[in-house]
Amino acid sequence: MKVIVIGATGTIGAAVASALAGKQHEVVRASRNGAAKVDIEDQATIRALFAAAGPADAVVSCAGSAVFKPFAQLTDADYAVGLNSKLMGQVALARIAANQLKDGGSITLTTGILAMRPMPGSAAISLVNAGLEGFVRAAALELPRRLRINAVSPPWVKETMVKLRMDTAPGLAAADVAKAYVAAVEGTMQGEIIEAAKFRG
Amino acid sequence: MKVIVIGATGTIGAAVASALAGKQHEVVRASRNGAAKVDIEDQATIRALFAAAGPADAVVSCAGSAVFKPFAQLTDADYAVGLNSKLMGQVALARIAANQLKDGGSITLTTGILAMRPMPGSAAISLVNAGLEGFVRAAALELPRRLRINAVSPPWVKETMVKLRMDTAPGLAAADVAKAYVAAVEGTMQGEIIEAAKFRG
Repeated sequence: MKVIVIGATGTIGAAVASALAGKQHEVVRASRNGAAKVDIEDQATIRALFAAAGPADAVVSCAGSAVFKPFAQLTDADYAVGLNSKLMGQVALARIAANQLKDGGSITLTTGILAMRPMPGSAAISLVNAGLEGFVRAAALELPRRLRINAVSPPWVKETMVKLRMDTAPGLAAADVAKAYVAAVEGTMQGEIIEAAKFRG
Repeated sequence: MKVIVIGATGTIGAAVASALAGKQHEVVRASRNGAAKVDIEDQATIRALFAAAGPADAVVSCAGSAVFKPFAQLTDADYAVGLNSKLMGQVALARIAANQLKDGGSITLTTGILAMRPMPGSAAISLVNAGLEGFVRAAALELPRRLRINAVSPPWVKETMVKLRMDTAPGLAAADVAKAYVAAVEGTMQGEIIEAAKFRG
C-alpha cells in the first residue's frame, strides 16, 4: 500500500513510518519541514500533499500539538493551539482525505490517553483528544467508498519521557506504539479508538 | 442556593429553572434575550452576568449550539459554530465561574448523547460534546475551593422531537431531563458525565 505519514519526523511518526516501510509499504514521509511538506493547520498544504503524493491507500497522522498547563493558567490562546492544531488540523486532514484516498482506503489519526484518563494540567489536551475521538466515531458512520477512519490512543511514550527526564515512570516504546498504527492501516477497524498500550510487544 | 441558569428560555433550560425553583432555590434565569442577558460566546457578558447576579452557589448551562449536517456537507463554518458556541462557550463559562462562584459551588454544563453514540449527521456535534466531556473530566481535577464541575448528557428530548415532528421516536420529557441537573447541583458529583436518561421519572 502507499501510505502517507504526517508528522514523520516526530518520535511516534518516525517509528510508524519505519514500521510501515518494514512491512513493504510505500511510505510518503510528510512533515512541516521535510521533503514532503505539510502543515495540518493549513488546508492548502494538505491538498498539495495529496496532489504531490498521487493516489494513496492510507494516511496516518502523528501530528498536532496542544498545551499542557495548569487549569488556572490556561489562556484563550492556549486552548486555541490545540483546537487549531491537533483537533481541527486532524479533522481537516480527514475531510480532505475522504475525497482523495483510493476506494477502501484508511485514515488513522492520533488521540491520546488523556482523553479518558486526565491528569492535572491536561484540561486543554483532554478536550482536544476527546473531541477528536467523538469526531472519529461519528465520521466513521458516513465515510463513502468503503473508507475507514480510526484514531490511535498512545499512552506515555518512553522516548518522550526520557527527553522530559520523567523516565522513572512507565512508558511504551515508540516502536510498540507504532504497531497500533500498522494494525489500523492493515486491518478492518472502523470508527475505533485503538489503545496503543494493548500492542505492547 | 442561588443558582444561575443560562439558556433558561430553551426547552431544557426552562425545565431546569422550574425544577430548581420548585425546590426552593433562588434561580437567576439568564439567556441571550432575557432580563439577565448573557451570550456564552462573549466572555464579557458572562463576567457581567456574574457581577450583576452577585455571589452564587451554582451555575447551570443549558446553552450552546452546533450544526447537524451530513459529514460530506459540513463546512469549516459549520464546525466553527459548535466550537465557538457549545464547546468553547461553555468552557469559557466554566473558567469564569471557577473564579466567581462561592466556595463549594458547582458548575453544570450540557453535553449530549451523540458524544458517545453518534449517528449520521452528528460529526460536528459529536466532536463538540465529546470534547466538552474530556474538558469536564480534566478540569474537575484542578478546580479550587471545593468547586465541582459536571456535565449532563441529555438523550433526545420529547418536546424537541415534537417540534421536529420526529415524535414517533422515543424521547425523555424535559421535566425528567431537569432532574439530572438538579442532582448535579444538589449532590456531590465531581467530573462526571451524568446520563439524564437514568433519571426517567
